[in-house]
Amino acid sequence: MPTLNRQITLAARPVGMPKESDFRLEESPMPRPGGGEVLVQARYLSVDPYMRGRLSGVTTYARGLDLGEVIVGGVVGRVVESNDPRHSAGDTVEGMLGWQEYAVAPGRLLRQIDPAAGPISSALYVLGMPGLTAYFGLLEICRPHAGETVVVSGAAGAVGSLVGQIARIKRCRAIGIAGSREKVRFLTEELGFDGAFNYRETTDYAAKLKELCPNGVDVYFDNVGGVITDAVMRHIATNARVAVCGQISQYNAVEPETGPRWLSQLIVRQAKVEGFLVSQFAGRFEDGLRQLSTWMKEKRLVYREDVVDGLENAPQAFIRMLEGKNIGKQLVKVGT
Amino acid sequence: MPTLNRQITLAARPVGMPKESDFRLEESPMPRPGGGEVLVQARYLSVDPYMRGRLSGVTTYARGLDLGEVIVGGVVGRVVESNDPRHSAGDTVEGMLGWQEYAVAPGRLLRQIDPAAGPISSALYVLGMPGLTAYFGLLEICRPHAGETVVVSGAAGAVGSLVGQIARIKRCRAIGIAGSREKVRFLTEELGFDGAFNYRETTDYAAKLKELCPNGVDVYFDNVGGVITDAVMRHIATNARVAVCGQISQYNAVEPETGPRWLSQLIVRQAKVEGFLVSQFAGRFEDGLRQLSTWMKEKRLVYREDVVDGLENAPQAFIRMLEGKNIGKQLVKVGT
Repeated sequence: MPTLNRQITLAARPVGMPKESDFRLEESPMPRPGGGEVLVQARYLSVDPYMRGRLSGVTTYARGLDLGEVIVGGVVGRVVESNDPRHSAGDTVEGMLGWQEYAVAPGRLLRQIDPAAGPISSALYVLGMPGLTAYFGLLEICRPHAGETVVVSGAAGAVGSLVGQIARIKRCRAIGIAGSREKVRFLTEELGFDGAFNYRETTDYAAKLKELCPNGVDVYFDNVGGVITDAVMRHIATNARVAVCGQISQYNAVEPETGPRWLSQLIVRQAKVEGFLVSQFAGRFEDGLRQLSTWMKEKRLVYREDVVDGLENAPQAFIRMLEGKNIGKQLVKVGT
Repeated sequence: MPTLNRQITLAARPVGMPKESDFRLEESPMPRPGGGEVLVQARYLSVDPYMRGRLSGVTTYARGLDLGEVIVGGVVGRVVESNDPRHSAGDTVEGMLGWQEYAVAPGRLLRQIDPAAGPISSALYVLGMPGLTAYFGLLEICRPHAGETVVVSGAAGAVGSLVGQIARIKRCRAIGIAGSREKVRFLTEELGFDGAFNYRETTDYAAKLKELCPNGVDVYFDNVGGVITDAVMRHIATNARVAVCGQISQYNAVEPETGPRWLSQLIVRQAKVEGFLVSQFAGRFEDGLRQLSTWMKEKRLVYREDVVDGLENAPQAFIRMLEGKNIGKQLVKVGT
């Protein structure tokens, strides 16, 4: 074991899209676990859209970071030393350990991962926060019925790619909105979406939505916001349900964006728009993981990881995810 | 009985705020009831914000009107002649009879009104569509709990004034937003609202909402939309519920208005925004009317009518209601 730890810290508050210079690679003394604590060696780091909010320093549902702090995010790794009876050296665990090679955390905040259940990285994806977000967001917030049309934005991302597939499992029509031809092919050819379009090459969103959703949009799972959501809102069906999961198009806005008002449309369509956090469903995570695991084993949930190698490249991985360059779950592989 | 009927028809499609010249007073032959039909003499006409949509000619939930058509709206009146066994001459009935002195309608579309239950005009207010809208919109869409803060816009109007009082009955704090000092006094001194402010004389809505709702807004019942709603959305509490009942600030817009995007706020607050139509609850209207009637008799629902006299003044009454000049329910008294 090395004597020094390597960490990525917040060097500057990003203005607009984060730059690599907003982050700093630092060395620090190797941490030692105290009572009830566990030392974990990171294997995979998760980079997720919501983490952009932490960098602003404002605490909403996720804690804002101070300058100089290690970037906080989900990590899967291997227990090196444990002072908690729930975990033993060699175990695989998942927790909010941040962008660093080694981390110490209270054992009670770590989740045991069964390496036999699938690749350990899936603890950050299908069998982790994105999977649970897709599962509870779609099934509990939107309550889709067989035969309904489900539209998802950010469809080729970690959450979106699962939302469309779960919609299909529930016998809905799944329509994806994504940002490249390759993503559209991924959705329709690999994941079985019923339709998809590339918003960067579509000029008339309304016409495209009408073509792909001739009976209107019954369920809209929104990861993106902005002009894409404006277009979908104009095309919702009566009794539509909209889950607001993310608004990645707005996260780097320097000034708050404006857009057309559409609350009248909610009256006309008797429709509901609901924001949610996966943590609302914490009491039911085990049920969700059991179902997701079953679907994964049955190959009814197909997934793709987009892996960048090396802790030092975590900022770059985070930026490319915010730029929409990833297909599937963006991860950073650390160590061996 | 006269040989001619007087009616108000749509002379021109309003652009922006309707003008009196958009309407025309016409005479037509007295209608005669056919099989199953009833001839009704109007006593009170209802003018309601949603009727603005009809004038545009576009059918959403309410049918758009053709040029030359009689303006469609709720009416309470007296049966003159009936070919339907459910109704007899002399009965008081309510229905969508429009702006005219006499109307013929199928008996099955008319509701019998008990004159002993209260003034017959209440069939267009507390014991009619506005009452049911306030009742089901607040209780079913927002599900307020005792101790919560309920904010209502358009608070001195027909629906808003009841929403605040029902919130009080359910032991919530009721805060009203209205457009004059007189309305604010009406809300706080006559109706028992816990607080209210005049948006026309308030420059900093955020500060005012913070003062009146120190723990945030748990429930927002929106009749207005626009900048008022923008301000409330920034101040919602965790798990807030927003019922979108009307958007009167937008009804006369010639170009769609834009405003700040706030879907991220729904995520942070895990909040829900739901549009509704009172017709969703049609199967439960009897229950609602029974409860509203009880509260009215117990004087727990106080109400005020704003009555304009004469069919010929219906357009003026409609315009003053759209301009927010009424306090309480805007009505037009017709005949004797």
